[in-house]
Amino acid sequence: METTGAPNDGLLQHPWRPVAIDGCQLLAKSCFGETRYHILLTDLHCVWEETMHSAAIQSRAQELNKRLQAPVKAFFSHLCEVVRPCLSGSRQPPEGEANISVMRLDGGNLSLRLKSKLAGLPLHWEFRCTPAPVTVVCLHLVQPLLSMSHTLQQEVEQLEGLLVSKDAEIQDYKENGATLSRARLQTEIFERHTYRGSFLAKTLAVVCSDHHSVKNFGVDLQELYTAVVAHGSMRKRKLSEQDELVTTVVDATTSSDADRGEADSEQNQTSPVAEAGDHIVRTATTQQLATCGLAERAPSKAKKKKAVGLFR
Amino acid sequence: METTGAPNDGLLQHPWRPVAIDGCQLLAKSCFGETRYHILLTDLHCVWEETMHSAAIQSRAQELNKRLQAPVKAFFSHLCEVVRPCLSGSRQPPEGEANISVMRLDGGNLSLRLKSKLAGLPLHWEFRCTPAPVTVVCLHLVQPLLSMSHTLQQEVEQLEGLLVSKDAEIQDYKENGATLSRARLQTEIFERHTYRGSFLAKTLAVVCSDHHSVKNFGVDLQELYTAVVAHGSMRKRKLSEQDELVTTVVDATTSSDADRGEADSEQNQTSPVAEAGDHIVRTATTQQLATCGLAERAPSKAKKKKAVGLFR
Repeated sequence: METTGAPNDGLLQHPWRPVAIDGCQLLAKSCFGETRYHILLTDLHCVWEETMHSAAIQSRAQELNKRLQAPVKAFFSHLCEVVRPCLSGSRQPPEGEANISVMRLDGGNLSLRLKSKLAGLPLHWEFRCTPAPVTVVCLHLVQPLLSMSHTLQQEVEQLEGLLVSKDAEIQDYKENGATLSRARLQTEIFERHTYRGSFLAKTLAVVCSDHHSVKNFGVDLQELYTAVVAHGSMRKRKLSEQDELVTTVVDATTSSDADRGEADSEQNQTSPVAEAGDHIVRTATTQQLATCGLAERAPSKAKKKKAVGLFR
Repeated sequence: METTGAPNDGLLQHPWRPVAIDGCQLLAKSCFGETRYHILLTDLHCVWEETMHSAAIQSRAQELNKRLQAPVKAFFSHLCEVVRPCLSGSRQPPEGEANISVMRLDGGNLSLRLKSKLAGLPLHWEFRCTPAPVTVVCLHLVQPLLSMSHTLQQEVEQLEGLLVSKDAEIQDYKENGATLSRARLQTEIFERHTYRGSFLAKTLAVVCSDHHSVKNFGVDLQELYTAVVAHGSMRKRKLSEQDELVTTVVDATTSSDADRGEADSEQNQTSPVAEAGDHIVRTATTQQLATCGLAERAPSKAKKKKAVGLFR
């Protein structure tokens, strides 16, 4: 659910990657099409984005490069070549070939200014990123990060269980008189609570010394992120197919109810007075369902019919 | 760093708790003082907040309860009693005692409307929550969730290592002819990659069937959240103390440099022309340092002096 009308350009499926641009540590996500792009950046204190399409790119290219003659496609192809590796964290542009500076502007905007060369002439570009809407931050960061934390917490619990089983096996060998040929192989009995306390005390001191470090989004977490959003998207597609199916069924049921002219129609009768003050309540109720999101996705048939009725 | 001027009321240290209000699944955080409160709510698609202090509470209480005579303190004390348990997920208000409805309003706002009774008279309250700034979402969700994911990923790796050690111990017993008295205690050899693939395939299907479920923020994650933000805050306090120390040292150094009238002063000399176009660059450079946040917190002495110079 791209709630903000953000382009459905597959950016969600891209992992965040730690990048260092102009000495700034950022997490970046970008998606470059033929003559369009969508980028997201965060320093973990704010999140910025910019989406640009062909005409806007052409106009800004002209604004920043008065003498530019190249068609937007050639210009954009060069831009991609220089910028894409930087934003994917794979490499910095070679010294002299291109220079990118990062500037935080008044109003909370973030500007990435590129100076490069195209056919021997200086070429300028500017990514004018604005703070992303909270819905975008939720979609691209909060939701996946919570699912990742939950998944990892489950994995920790399962691995702890496996360790307890290994200890039971070891204990049985020992009770039957087995001994180790190499004493260094002896492990301590795993005790969940003692272990966790000591692990957290040690690890949090290190993790939190880099508390806001974008580097914490390492390769393992990038892979998990991709897996989580891929599963989430699959789930959404399935739900959306189910919704279509339910709506079709409900529509058919509503029509046949109407034909029978039964009790339901009474619920839709309103006095003019009630009707006047009713709009906000209706809006609120419908939007309330929207707020509840997935939790409300499987209402009873009666509930669903009522919700549909609000729009009639 | 409460970058938005949000009240430093300790809300960061509170864990998020899954709550169900009026059928809506939300994560909530709240902090109630004597006659003030600060609440944060999210359905994982948006994040809302409201901060209210004594005078504003009094004025809204009067607006919503024309006949109210009670002093703000008595009113607020009753409000806390009813609302606090709901927002901490500990219990719903008993049927008939109070009713809270959740409404998503135009403009993306979220309203929680309370109907209760005080001294036998109906009592109304409304939490008028607005979408939280992205910086607040980063502070209360993105930063801690990333640190939590990173910590849990480390824990997974460490537990995997322990399992490999257990297997080495078991293997040694076996090679020395040990046998199990109870065959059911036998475990499979732990193979990191096979295990992870199969774990993720199974778990993500379940986690992502509840992809946006606030219930994923379970008790274990709440505890980890609290530990992570507590360590983060400790770290910030230490850094802030260090910063004060560095600033004092730098101030002293700058003064003595100025007394000696050395080369540094040349760098601050600007022609009138250069000065005119210089403001935006200066602003950008200073703000750039701010953007880079903690990554830039330990600059060389020379760098620090330059940054300080920009404000003089």
